[in-house]
Amino acid sequence: MSATIAVIGLGNAGLPLAAVIAENEIEVLGVDIDPVRCQRINRGENPIPQETGLDELIRRHGGKSLVACADYQEARSCQVFIVIVPLFVDHMFNPDYRILESAFRSIGRILKPGDLVILETTVPPGTTERLVKPWLEEESGMELGQFHLAYSPERIMTGYSISRLREFPKVVGGLDEDSGLLAYQVYSRFIPHLSLVSSARVAEFIKVMEGCYRDVNIGLANELFKIAGDLGVDFFEARNFANHQYCHVHLPSTGVGGHCIPVYPWFLIREMERLERFDHARLLRTAREINDQMAEHWAGQILLQCMRLDRPLAQVRICVRGITYRSGVKEFHHSRNLALVRLLMDKGLQVYAWDELMSREEVEAKGLNWLPPQEADLVFDTSTLKMEMPGGGA
Amino acid sequence: MSATIAVIGLGNAGLPLAAVIAENEIEVLGVDIDPVRCQRINRGENPIPQETGLDELIRRHGGKSLVACADYQEARSCQVFIVIVPLFVDHMFNPDYRILESAFRSIGRILKPGDLVILETTVPPGTTERLVKPWLEEESGMELGQFHLAYSPERIMTGYSISRLREFPKVVGGLDEDSGLLAYQVYSRFIPHLSLVSSARVAEFIKVMEGCYRDVNIGLANELFKIAGDLGVDFFEARNFANHQYCHVHLPSTGVGGHCIPVYPWFLIREMERLERFDHARLLRTAREINDQMAEHWAGQILLQCMRLDRPLAQVRICVRGITYRSGVKEFHHSRNLALVRLLMDKGLQVYAWDELMSREEVEAKGLNWLPPQEADLVFDTSTLKMEMPGGGA
Repeated sequence: MSATIAVIGLGNAGLPLAAVIAENEIEVLGVDIDPVRCQRINRGENPIPQETGLDELIRRHGGKSLVACADYQEARSCQVFIVIVPLFVDHMFNPDYRILESAFRSIGRILKPGDLVILETTVPPGTTERLVKPWLEEESGMELGQFHLAYSPERIMTGYSISRLREFPKVVGGLDEDSGLLAYQVYSRFIPHLSLVSSARVAEFIKVMEGCYRDVNIGLANELFKIAGDLGVDFFEARNFANHQYCHVHLPSTGVGGHCIPVYPWFLIREMERLERFDHARLLRTAREINDQMAEHWAGQILLQCMRLDRPLAQVRICVRGITYRSGVKEFHHSRNLALVRLLMDKGLQVYAWDELMSREEVEAKGLNWLPPQEADLVFDTSTLKMEMPGGGA
Repeated sequence: MSATIAVIGLGNAGLPLAAVIAENEIEVLGVDIDPVRCQRINRGENPIPQETGLDELIRRHGGKSLVACADYQEARSCQVFIVIVPLFVDHMFNPDYRILESAFRSIGRILKPGDLVILETTVPPGTTERLVKPWLEEESGMELGQFHLAYSPERIMTGYSISRLREFPKVVGGLDEDSGLLAYQVYSRFIPHLSLVSSARVAEFIKVMEGCYRDVNIGLANELFKIAGDLGVDFFEARNFANHQYCHVHLPSTGVGGHCIPVYPWFLIREMERLERFDHARLLRTAREINDQMAEHWAGQILLQCMRLDRPLAQVRICVRGITYRSGVKEFHHSRNLALVRLLMDKGLQVYAWDELMSREEVEAKGLNWLPPQEADLVFDTSTLKMEMPGGGA
């Protein structure tokens, strides 16, 4: 098992990466805390069916050149460790580093001189230097230089991860020069579009910056969408003709959900607070507020639509169609669609939820009432932002 | 002179348009209040030398198929009137419609049944319907339907206007269906990439939306630039690798100047205030504030840089290099570079200005002190955002 690359974390980001490495004729040892997931992968079963192209790679390499296990000891002969475990945030969007810390301390305990460790999880800029380096040094008893440490942000998007790894530009930055060069060499064996940047911190900032661009531009789209409505302008028509090579107005929404875009701006907002630069993240914060406030906006729009129905408001059956954080992905992290349902429930309205990815039982297990859209008086589709009245309006 | 198109306003936007129309073998009558400018154009002289390609067109058509005059009466036989006069704003960014009103009332007095009037000036959405239509109806004694009225925003950029007209998508929207179709037919004779949208109001919104996208994204770039500085990250390196097909982080600056981008967001902000939608333009307003605040940011950076000089702060000769609103354009409207010079002067520092487009006399006529950069102790280049110490630091 020598010259094997260890991928720590076989989740939505880690497993596609491990599969792509295996596809490039490199032995991969995947480490994941979930032994059942590991067994499935070793049987050639893909635990992320919505990931295009992953089925085939796992069938071909699972249990062969891609071996999954739950024990770090299995990775002790590896010389390269790529860490791609989740970084969760608390309810105030402060990062909870416990999973990262546990992964790196586990690696530190099996680290050998000359080994290379790379973090891929999106983190606040400075994390690799300020936290990861001391964790590894404490556990290994070595100092940076004896081992190598770099950062290279994953840029996957669930559903498109394989093509992202094959077609998208990837950046890598070392904590020192040797680490950067070594990490660049390793990645160049399986990543076609690779760039070495001047430091791990720059690489960390690049990824967070992208998320901030997305969040602010979705916030702008939501703001312009509301203004267009106030001015009697069809936003979608206007957007279609406003966009060109220098103009990229995004799409409006119920807000921004998931583990990524709604979280990354907070990394910078909190960092600016910590540095007492209170006015250095105003736009990021405003965009966050606008996006999160869209649930309230749509609740208001749904109420206005109820005027078209010839029945008392309290008896109108409102169905929110699509409650996962985005359509096609069965996840709820920071789902603004779910927030909209709860907001309407809090107002005392008769609200039901429906989602093509969920059974009645799954919806009800979330404490929501379930109803097929065609049985509701009013349906709000969170994906198209359209409202329908299956029984016809008044 | 029948079948001639009249272009009202031969400024930075109107003259390139008139020249492109003439180049397409259509007779153009240009109307401008400045008789000297008209004479120059009729002699084949280009009054906007920085406009690429315009010299040749004016030499070829000026005084021939493009005739300029100061009197609307000369245009009385025209059947198409394209208005592209400036819309200024007062110090609170409220539009001052007097130039527009004067132009349209002048047209109204010579308007004939079946004529087509098109506004190209960027305006708050609704202006063509709410203001232009009544001006024309009052002066002509006709009602819309007897004449035609449409809106088609100019999308030029000084220096690139000819190529913009030839290569950029242009939209047109009518106040009624006939007006839209007729305006589309007229423009299709000289604009290759043309789209008809559903209304004048949508066309108005499209142009303002573009400006808002630019302003908010420049605001975001400025905010991320400051954050990168706080985190010890080279913003320009990070931006270079962050940008790809889905990410378009803009460039930081001293703010946003000129007649366009810093003004258009206010059109929507003021309109939302008028409609009492006070929370519907928060992002637009925050971006405006961030961009306008950059002068203060750079003043602070310049002061910090003075620590490197071995002389009392009050004796440091600071030279701001580049004071027009953007490099290469000799205009000062909402110039944040000029604002920076004045801000430093207000602080009592020894501040000088220098600009490659301006003589010593022109700089001094603005009430500023002039000094060549090489004679200053500290030079701040507003275009590159770089600071230099010609005499070397301490």
